[in-house]
Amino acid sequence: MSLIVQKYGGSSVANPERIKNVARRIVAAKKAGNDVVAVVSALGDTTDDLIDLAKKMTDDPSEREMDMLMATGEQMSAALLSMAVHALGCSAISFTGAQVGIFTDNVHTKAKIRSISTDRVTSALKEGNIVIVAGFQGVNEAQDITTLGRGGSDTTAVALAAVLKADDCEIYTDVNGIFTTDPRVVSEAKRIPEISYDEMLELASLGAKVMHSRSIEFAKKYGVKIHVRSSFNDEPGTMIVEEAREMEDVVIRGVTADKDQAKVTISKVADKPGIAAKIFKLLADAHINIDMIIQNVSEQGHTDISFTVSQTDLSKTLNVLKNAANEVGAQKIDSDDKIAKVSVVGIGMKSHSGVAANLFEALAKEGINILMISTSEIKISCVIRREYADKAVQTVHQKFGLGINHA
Amino acid sequence: MSLIVQKYGGSSVANPERIKNVARRIVAAKKAGNDVVAVVSALGDTTDDLIDLAKKMTDDPSEREMDMLMATGEQMSAALLSMAVHALGCSAISFTGAQVGIFTDNVHTKAKIRSISTDRVTSALKEGNIVIVAGFQGVNEAQDITTLGRGGSDTTAVALAAVLKADDCEIYTDVNGIFTTDPRVVSEAKRIPEISYDEMLELASLGAKVMHSRSIEFAKKYGVKIHVRSSFNDEPGTMIVEEAREMEDVVIRGVTADKDQAKVTISKVADKPGIAAKIFKLLADAHINIDMIIQNVSEQGHTDISFTVSQTDLSKTLNVLKNAANEVGAQKIDSDDKIAKVSVVGIGMKSHSGVAANLFEALAKEGINILMISTSEIKISCVIRREYADKAVQTVHQKFGLGINHA
Repeated sequence: MSLIVQKYGGSSVANPERIKNVARRIVAAKKAGNDVVAVVSALGDTTDDLIDLAKKMTDDPSEREMDMLMATGEQMSAALLSMAVHALGCSAISFTGAQVGIFTDNVHTKAKIRSISTDRVTSALKEGNIVIVAGFQGVNEAQDITTLGRGGSDTTAVALAAVLKADDCEIYTDVNGIFTTDPRVVSEAKRIPEISYDEMLELASLGAKVMHSRSIEFAKKYGVKIHVRSSFNDEPGTMIVEEAREMEDVVIRGVTADKDQAKVTISKVADKPGIAAKIFKLLADAHINIDMIIQNVSEQGHTDISFTVSQTDLSKTLNVLKNAANEVGAQKIDSDDKIAKVSVVGIGMKSHSGVAANLFEALAKEGINILMISTSEIKISCVIRREYADKAVQTVHQKFGLGINHA
Repeated sequence: MSLIVQKYGGSSVANPERIKNVARRIVAAKKAGNDVVAVVSALGDTTDDLIDLAKKMTDDPSEREMDMLMATGEQMSAALLSMAVHALGCSAISFTGAQVGIFTDNVHTKAKIRSISTDRVTSALKEGNIVIVAGFQGVNEAQDITTLGRGGSDTTAVALAAVLKADDCEIYTDVNGIFTTDPRVVSEAKRIPEISYDEMLELASLGAKVMHSRSIEFAKKYGVKIHVRSSFNDEPGTMIVEEAREMEDVVIRGVTADKDQAKVTISKVADKPGIAAKIFKLLADAHINIDMIIQNVSEQGHTDISFTVSQTDLSKTLNVLKNAANEVGAQKIDSDDKIAKVSVVGIGMKSHSGVAANLFEALAKEGINILMISTSEIKISCVIRREYADKAVQTVHQKFGLGINHA
């Protein structure tokens, strides 16, 4: 008998009909002879509704109380899904994160899992139950409810699959798997049957929204194979697995565009050791995530530093820099929130040369100017003006021959 | 420094503005130098919305999963109220029933509290926090969430007041206390400044909806003085206390009408020992609460049995009886759901005679026929046709001189 962990996202349980649909899938997996643990997100808009309510109480709600509030969403959907399974004549039992023994650190709203005690789940499975777990949540040492941050239910599913030594970890979503690029932008986009953790990590942090990078890091660390599938059909989806040698035959796995980017330039910073460190320390203290950083060659004791942040962090970033401008001797701070980051990702890059050249050539051919470049072993990103983002993705996707052959 | 336990019902926290209003009350009590524990119900319609969702999953949701689902309502309002208190600059911390250590038996949807561990609340109070507790819920030995049934948040408040040895237990609601009768029916109805547990118990089980009888039983058992007040103004409300000698000077404390009643008559039951026991055993097994029972004098080896049940239990009752009709030798089963039970309650009855006579006379004067009568030491109830219920309450209220003297 196999043990399958399944995770259903908010859109898969957005309304009563969809919850019943999920119940049918779970029961089918059970009746096929498997033990099933289903992790479930909050119903569709619940999370947004709860945030709205909190904002009506105070502009800056306490993170402990936010977790207390938000965790109700998943508890609700877990109970409802359990009832829907009962209606199909199967035994099921729902658990909160605390009940299932998901212990986390104390960092409210983005807690990290420390340990999971499997006793309760294991004995519930032994009694023949389908086990339904409220995703996204855990409990700290003080028994306070914590939540796991963005993509938290994926993390719950992967972590449970790891500790329960599950045979499969299926992440159900509203798309048919991972694609070579966004099919809404490029109609030739092709489903990727198999992708490595590292490629998926890069794609996730570069704007592919299907899975959050944290859950993939977790899966990589514990060797949990992930199967990303749609909850609305039986398409085969995408397997996220360990890197395999034959994967290197594919040079580029996918193309992404991240339009949620802004560029900040600090001009004529004093070119002394420790100045850049000071700037980025200040930003880190303000919990601002910096992405790409470029420092120009120094001229007459001054230098320019450019970097990108997410658009939501832009105003916070500018505030921090303004307060520190004198301290770091900056003469001017500019920002541009009309940019996008286009990236190509593929393990094959490690063993194939000329990828960067091909990428730049494709963009040049369309007259698209590159503002910043950053590379890793398996990825190249270019910052361009946002108006060219879709065009860039289309032309790069074609250049690397990623699409379906419609001919 | 005094310790006050306050409880706010669903209508007091029906929307964000009202939650903020409650927060102001709590903070005022804290700033007046008290330690404050606030127990809170689910926001306005939340409970009904959750029941609707459950009913969409299955006609007969599992009680364990119902508790899992319903408990989210109070958890939500506790977190929101805590945020609203923070916005006023006070420390507050919210707890679920489980976190506060409210341990119950295993009877889902109507669990009884077994013990409360006060450590967490006491230490949170010591740290200067206002403690906010999700009402209505607890946890059983298996760490499963339980709920306390109707009036459960009142029970949470009274139980906390008992174990914490609170100086005051204030139950905030949307009316100005307990009245001699429903002010919507009798405009002369008068607020009762002080009432005994026993009188309040009778009134609560006879249709006065302000507090549920279970929480009053609890208060009586542990000697917790309850102060029922409105959360919308500063009117003095009603104190529910131990019986005091001077209370006997008031013969009748209040008049109620319960319109949620139906009468069932089983005709020509075999008049043998054990037959009535058999009938009521069957009904008890089906969890049907029987109220008044009348058995007529036997004629030729047969007898008629009449009793009342709540209207919601009527169809279930008739099903049980139909299946058992042969067994008990009943020849006919009739029911009437157009009845009401009008009652007068007062400790003074113990030492005053003629109350029944006065009651019957008042009803007779208005031409209202009495279908059934039942009495206890401090109450007399009459079943009448429902169309006369309001008229009966008005005339009885006047007969016993309970109203405000408008002259």
